[in-house]
Amino acid sequence: MAWINEFSDNQRVFAQLLVTNVTRGVTGNNLAYLTVSFQDKTGTIDGKKWDVQVEDNETYQPGHIVEVTGDVIMYRNSLQMKIISGRLLDSSSVDASRFTMSAPVERDILEKKLAKYLDSIADPDCSAIVKNLVAQYYDRFVVYPAAVRNHHEYTSGLLFHTLSMADLAEQIIVCYPQINRDLLISGILLHDIGKTVELSGPIIPKYTVEGKMLGHISIMDSEIRRVASELGITSEIPMLLEHMVLSHHGKQEFGSPVEPLTREALLLNIIDDLDAKMVILDKAYAATVEGEFTTKIFPLDERTFYKMKSK
Amino acid sequence: MAWINEFSDNQRVFAQLLVTNVTRGVTGNNLAYLTVSFQDKTGTIDGKKWDVQVEDNETYQPGHIVEVTGDVIMYRNSLQMKIISGRLLDSSSVDASRFTMSAPVERDILEKKLAKYLDSIADPDCSAIVKNLVAQYYDRFVVYPAAVRNHHEYTSGLLFHTLSMADLAEQIIVCYPQINRDLLISGILLHDIGKTVELSGPIIPKYTVEGKMLGHISIMDSEIRRVASELGITSEIPMLLEHMVLSHHGKQEFGSPVEPLTREALLLNIIDDLDAKMVILDKAYAATVEGEFTTKIFPLDERTFYKMKSK
Amino acid sequence: MAWINEFSDNQRVFAQLLVTNVTRGVTGNNLAYLTVSFQDKTGTIDGKKWDVQVEDNETYQPGHIVEVTGDVIMYRNSLQMKIISGRLLDSSSVDASRFTMSAPVERDILEKKLAKYLDSIADPDCSAIVKNLVAQYYDRFVVYPAAVRNHHEYTSGLLFHTLSMADLAEQIIVCYPQINRDLLISGILLHDIGKTVELSGPIIPKYTVEGKMLGHISIMDSEIRRVASELGITSEIPMLLEHMVLSHHGKQEFGSPVEPLTREALLLNIIDDLDAKMVILDKAYAATVEGEFTTKIFPLDERTFYKMKSK
Amino acid sequence: MAWINEFSDNQRVFAQLLVTNVTRGVTGNNLAYLTVSFQDKTGTIDGKKWDVQVEDNETYQPGHIVEVTGDVIMYRNSLQMKIISGRLLDSSSVDASRFTMSAPVERDILEKKLAKYLDSIADPDCSAIVKNLVAQYYDRFVVYPAAVRNHHEYTSGLLFHTLSMADLAEQIIVCYPQINRDLLISGILLHDIGKTVELSGPIIPKYTVEGKMLGHISIMDSEIRRVASELGITSEIPMLLEHMVLSHHGKQEFGSPVEPLTREALLLNIIDDLDAKMVILDKAYAATVEGEFTTKIFPLDERTFYKMKSK
Amino acid sequence: MAWINEFSDNQRVFAQLLVTNVTRGVTGNNLAYLTVSFQDKTGTIDGKKWDVQVEDNETYQPGHIVEVTGDVIMYRNSLQMKIISGRLLDSSSVDASRFTMSAPVERDILEKKLAKYLDSIADPDCSAIVKNLVAQYYDRFVVYPAAVRNHHEYTSGLLFHTLSMADLAEQIIVCYPQINRDLLISGILLHDIGKTVELSGPIIPKYTVEGKMLGHISIMDSEIRRVASELGITSEIPMLLEHMVLSHHGKQEFGSPVEPLTREALLLNIIDDLDAKMVILDKAYAATVEGEFTTKIFPLDERTFYKMKSK
Amino acid sequence: MAWINEFSDNQRVFAQLLVTNVTRGVTGNNLAYLTVSFQDKTGTIDGKKWDVQVEDNETYQPGHIVEVTGDVIMYRNSLQMKIISGRLLDSSSVDASRFTMSAPVERDILEKKLAKYLDSIADPDCSAIVKNLVAQYYDRFVVYPAAVRNHHEYTSGLLFHTLSMADLAEQIIVCYPQINRDLLISGILLHDIGKTVELSGPIIPKYTVEGKMLGHISIMDSEIRRVASELGITSEIPMLLEHMVLSHHGKQEFGSPVEPLTREALLLNIIDDLDAKMVILDKAYAATVEGEFTTKIFPLDERTFYKMKSK
Repeated sequence: MAWINEFSDNQRVFAQLLVTNVTRGVTGNNLAYLTVSFQDKTGTIDGKKWDVQVEDNETYQPGHIVEVTGDVIMYRNSLQMKIISGRLLDSSSVDASRFTMSAPVERDILEKKLAKYLDSIADPDCSAIVKNLVAQYYDRFVVYPAAVRNHHEYTSGLLFHTLSMADLAEQIIVCYPQINRDLLISGILLHDIGKTVELSGPIIPKYTVEGKMLGHISIMDSEIRRVASELGITSEIPMLLEHMVLSHHGKQEFGSPVEPLTREALLLNIIDDLDAKMVILDKAYAATVEGEFTTKIFPLDERTFYKMKSK
Repeated sequence: MAWINEFSDNQRVFAQLLVTNVTRGVTGNNLAYLTVSFQDKTGTIDGKKWDVQVEDNETYQPGHIVEVTGDVIMYRNSLQMKIISGRLLDSSSVDASRFTMSAPVERDILEKKLAKYLDSIADPDCSAIVKNLVAQYYDRFVVYPAAVRNHHEYTSGLLFHTLSMADLAEQIIVCYPQINRDLLISGILLHDIGKTVELSGPIIPKYTVEGKMLGHISIMDSEIRRVASELGITSEIPMLLEHMVLSHHGKQEFGSPVEPLTREALLLNIIDDLDAKMVILDKAYAATVEGEFTTKIFPLDERTFYKMKSK
Repeated sequence: MAWINEFSDNQRVFAQLLVTNVTRGVTGNNLAYLTVSFQDKTGTIDGKKWDVQVEDNETYQPGHIVEVTGDVIMYRNSLQMKIISGRLLDSSSVDASRFTMSAPVERDILEKKLAKYLDSIADPDCSAIVKNLVAQYYDRFVVYPAAVRNHHEYTSGLLFHTLSMADLAEQIIVCYPQINRDLLISGILLHDIGKTVELSGPIIPKYTVEGKMLGHISIMDSEIRRVASELGITSEIPMLLEHMVLSHHGKQEFGSPVEPLTREALLLNIIDDLDAKMVILDKAYAATVEGEFTTKIFPLDERTFYKMKSK
Repeated sequence: MAWINEFSDNQRVFAQLLVTNVTRGVTGNNLAYLTVSFQDKTGTIDGKKWDVQVEDNETYQPGHIVEVTGDVIMYRNSLQMKIISGRLLDSSSVDASRFTMSAPVERDILEKKLAKYLDSIADPDCSAIVKNLVAQYYDRFVVYPAAVRNHHEYTSGLLFHTLSMADLAEQIIVCYPQINRDLLISGILLHDIGKTVELSGPIIPKYTVEGKMLGHISIMDSEIRRVASELGITSEIPMLLEHMVLSHHGKQEFGSPVEPLTREALLLNIIDDLDAKMVILDKAYAATVEGEFTTKIFPLDERTFYKMKSK
Repeated sequence: MAWINEFSDNQRVFAQLLVTNVTRGVTGNNLAYLTVSFQDKTGTIDGKKWDVQVEDNETYQPGHIVEVTGDVIMYRNSLQMKIISGRLLDSSSVDASRFTMSAPVERDILEKKLAKYLDSIADPDCSAIVKNLVAQYYDRFVVYPAAVRNHHEYTSGLLFHTLSMADLAEQIIVCYPQINRDLLISGILLHDIGKTVELSGPIIPKYTVEGKMLGHISIMDSEIRRVASELGITSEIPMLLEHMVLSHHGKQEFGSPVEPLTREALLLNIIDDLDAKMVILDKAYAATVEGEFTTKIFPLDERTFYKMKSK
Repeated sequence: MAWINEFSDNQRVFAQLLVTNVTRGVTGNNLAYLTVSFQDKTGTIDGKKWDVQVEDNETYQPGHIVEVTGDVIMYRNSLQMKIISGRLLDSSSVDASRFTMSAPVERDILEKKLAKYLDSIADPDCSAIVKNLVAQYYDRFVVYPAAVRNHHEYTSGLLFHTLSMADLAEQIIVCYPQINRDLLISGILLHDIGKTVELSGPIIPKYTVEGKMLGHISIMDSEIRRVASELGITSEIPMLLEHMVLSHHGKQEFGSPVEPLTREALLLNIIDDLDAKMVILDKAYAATVEGEFTTKIFPLDERTFYKMKSK
């Protein structure tokens, strides 16, 4: 069994792979073929199935796990697989963790870190609200991705991004002691939990109907209000947390109904943006040679970044 | 006792007036004076109090009701009052309805019309949610203004605007029977109830802290979600109503976190906009002579509109 | 003879079809092929002609009517036809109405409705101008489409859209009696007649040189001025009608040299926009399953709309 | 009798002046005063009339000519006049040319130059249309300003600007012989004649109702179409001239319903813009010391320009 | 001798003050007066000099130091001084540090910190360039403000801001070890040194002619290029430093000719922005009561920020 | 040996061609093929190499000169070549001028014209700076293109464009004698010399790393500052020239860190823009039939221009 990141040009491979997308095409000779996107935990590759048989339509469907034999070739600077044969596997018989990319840190380490941050919140109202909501969404919160593409789009990406933001907040607070630390950490932990409703799941995430119609921002806002009411909290903390969630995209044109109006809401937006950009740059630089420019980076205004030479 | 809309140039007046705003100035000779904005149910006028005495600072404060003697003069095409003397009245001893402008239709007629619309909603989920929320906010809903300025900024303005929108919806539906009437009417009735939390009250309305930090859109969204959950509704109706409230400003840059994605949400935005514009134009035309242009109308892109000649 | 909307997967068909577009391609084997867009009054379909013969270049040209034999297959969720053979027909020998989509209402019903609206205008100046111009452009006005794509892009689409707008205006006037009904109806009837000069014809409409260089707005503006001068009208009605035509795109960036400055001009723009959006949504929803989103709707800011579930 | 450009600080003056604007104010002591804007052919000055008498309201009105005695003082870097007394003159008894600023070239020289340009157009269709329209609007064309403020806002400013543009066109053509000279010169001569309808007159120009509702662009477009039709011209010249007039503001957001789509239309827009900017800069530099920056120049994006040192 | 921050309402004061601005006015009675802006190291206050004498024009000029006797009064929520008399002092006889606000940290502490950062740069090319340029501009670099208004607009504000940014960078690097620390610190130290040419000096800073015409970004870019050439550096470090200076405003519309294209350039922009915002918020919050909103903060999109309640 | 502009449909050709670009593709049958872009001094053509051999990867590389045999066919309104065989030539054995398009004027004529302009600058500071920098960059300045695409993208395009701009400036000066001629001509000669660093060379120009990171504007700005310092010039001329270079893109969003603040800087921007547009239009019109519209012209806002009929 080979992993995708071990495939090389002109190699015959035998592998178990997750199908993430399928499109149908017709050749110049009017013959049908399939373009199948495969994934395992080490990467992704596109395959072509020429000479399509009836049973291929069954085998190659998004979410299926297939045992594939194929020939790998280099095409336009990327590897591609010519599929020779494939056999549909029973999902229950395979280890799902083989097929999904994960955060660069083990999940139980992330969970312990989360627990530590939860314990570190001294303000009783912040603590009660955050603990309640994290508990309620726990199962999804620890496995969901942070986005469908661009950054942290892998299993536990949401938790990894959230904790990186908390780490960054702790560093920045050292320079600006006037920041309300508990409020900022609480806002960070809560701000994107709504994505567990907005997206369909940790594997091949798509937007749900509710996600498109309401958005993760409004969903979480309602949840904070509900929990604060159930907990009987009468301070302004729930309002401040709701405000942080509502404003964390920074501008109305990015989907926030209100713009940040407290120091902590402003910082939440900046920290979210900064951590995402650092991760996006890492990914782009990893695929770039020193002394050259990256390909266009869509979420960085489609700019191409220069990778400096290490001396 | 004179009404403001009866004041004329070069007249001494004696009137009971509500103070809505006060600013302090200093003359070229370094003497203090006050500019006081007054209001009664027939209109507004600015007054100048020269030669300020210590007790004047007590008398002239926003929200106070004052019995004033003054001289009315014409200044830059507007009437202005030179305040001669003023006496602070006990608010409890005067009839508050003397001092606030009201909707052009009697409140009990509006309430009956509202009841009729509530009864007209056949869809059981729409009906349950709308009746519950209208009942909950009833006392404020029937007296609040729709805005702090520009249009429907008077007592019961919110209800008057809401019902005008419902009337307009009924007319438009005749042309497009594919519209879901119950959903549209429900969305119209609910869409701005959040203003009863966003604004401070029917008289001299200001934005509340919660209003600025969360906005009436998010406040009402949370309420629909809460009520639907309490009522145990499992259909997609709550999501569709939430979506209508969230998207009713039409664009993200106008404060909607999502843009309209159903026919009824799109119509809610158009109907809201159209009714507001008609009322704004009425007000501007009322102050304009035939064959001339209005002053700049701020919410209509600061354009000046032409008042055609009646033949 | 089959109609396009009766074609199904894996079917051999024999049909008379209008060619609306032709592009040439080259296969991976360097062989030429044609992609031919066909249309009849029930719909459109794309065909592929492999193995191109010299005479095919003659047969398949935009505007030609061809008797085709072909095999229909499903390709990427759309039907496509593999052309087996085709024979060019003499346009004069076929019934043109077979090949063009029409308004959903019979033309003579539309014409009667138009006559009724013309008779309903009481203001003598409005009436004289509108009747004169409708008469002058009558033959084209009753068959032209309202646009080259997106909405009302079929035979008599211009008239159908114009009358729908008039109907909508009549409904809205009920809520706002201050509207000058005759002026609004006159503006609606005239506003897009310039399209009969801007576009090339009812079938496969294209922009004319004059259409691109002057635009239907300026063309109609000049016509109203000319007719009013010929009729010796001295009231401000011609100016008000010209203003409505000039401003009916609502904003300068959409091609109106002036923005609406009367209530009726503002309404003309809103009614035009609203009716177009309703029709565009109908089309998009018709191709969408309940509980799903439409494809991106270009003229609605490329948003995808949700089709709610009917219970 | 003194001219405004001869007034100096601390001087008593006696002069005949045109009133262009009047506003009323109230002092800190609650006394009325008037701010009167005066003009003669050499410049403008603001005056203050303290201690207002009833007859002053009659004397000081826009358009009146007044014989004034006053004291000139320096106030905030500008001269201002304290009005001592004023006597209303009978307009018919004074020479109007005393009170209006004029183009820097004598009008009859401009008229001769215009005649020469008219004779220089060889293309018969261009020539016929331009001569017809110039003749028709001649009396206004030779005295109107080009704008109500910013540049060429004086008597015959429209003609002066038009001829400067023609001169500039002749120079640029030398570099680009592919330009159609007759078309370009014709477009320049016609492009702003609509201003003679859009504006109220050569003195204290204001926008007319027709000017605001239709704009000089659409007015002239209709005129070219009418004249071409009357002259029986069938070439594409009328369309090309209409296009140049319609597109000469360059962009839709500046009021052109279509953007320039021919070389000559593009040049007309550039030449118009360039000549206006040169004149605006001249005016700003004239009021600025070497080595300093001008005040903010509104039509040049509110930038302040540097006046270089002459060595 | 009183300090400005000790002045209170209804107090006669005697103080040595720096004049920062003077404007002339005329009262309703046509009498001249002066509005004089004063400053000492503890704050600013505006004064009015009524009844202007000839010698007052000499005494009250920007940059002069004046010994003033005056009466302080409260006017529109701010203190104002009625100037009774003033005596011009010889600038050389007074201690300049009395009259200028300073960074909240002593200058010699800042200088030591700067020295430490300079020593911490291990990369030889970075080190050589930064040390050379800091040395060259040292005298100005340690006393200039960072801006003429909004933030760090006091003596040594430029150095204080620069060092705060370096501190923040050190914190952020802990989270992202892939950052090139030497490059980032070098860019931070250099990025705004051009302001010592762009602005006129530490006291009452204004833009110089060169500052307006070239800008501090281009000035510093040229200096890095010159120094690198003089030092004979051939690595890509000079280009990377130039790029950081050129791009540090983040977007072209903010004056950067190129946008950030390296990780360190991107961070420089974010850190600059973040530190400025924190300082701007501090200032606004300091003038605001808990539970209220600040006044509009211009550099934060004119938003008003909420000051949360401390429990 | 055939030239590209002599190729015609259905012709076998034999030619020496420069390869400017190569991309790899895979056919429907999974066979590799190459798309090769060729150029000679008369034009460009794309070729397809089916049935790729190992040595083809060597032969067809950007910058190579290849002797090709192929069959020319018409494909989608453009000629295309099916490559039959190709032989790599030794670059040193062929005349490079065969393969690059050149300015429409001979280079030595351009050089003489440049010399004449250099001699015409009377101002000693302008003259010294311009002569020094032109001399320093002479070899590249006389052969570089002005851009990588759109206009003047051929050998000596930079010089040709520069001299056309100088010619245009001389014409415009006649109308506005207040222009400082020497400053304007100097700015024109210098403004784009930085492109000789920003671009890689006269043939197949690409952006260099330095070009992307700094841009030709900042590069030239630094050079003027350096040269002026070396020449010991103390007048404001160097600052004025730097300002012209920095601001010549007209707006910050087009890459100018400052906007034009002198008459000459403003004119430099306008003249640059005007000459580019005239050349772009020439090219588009040359490929268009009279009475038709050009294809979309990207640098002219993607508009299509109308080519008028010559009578």
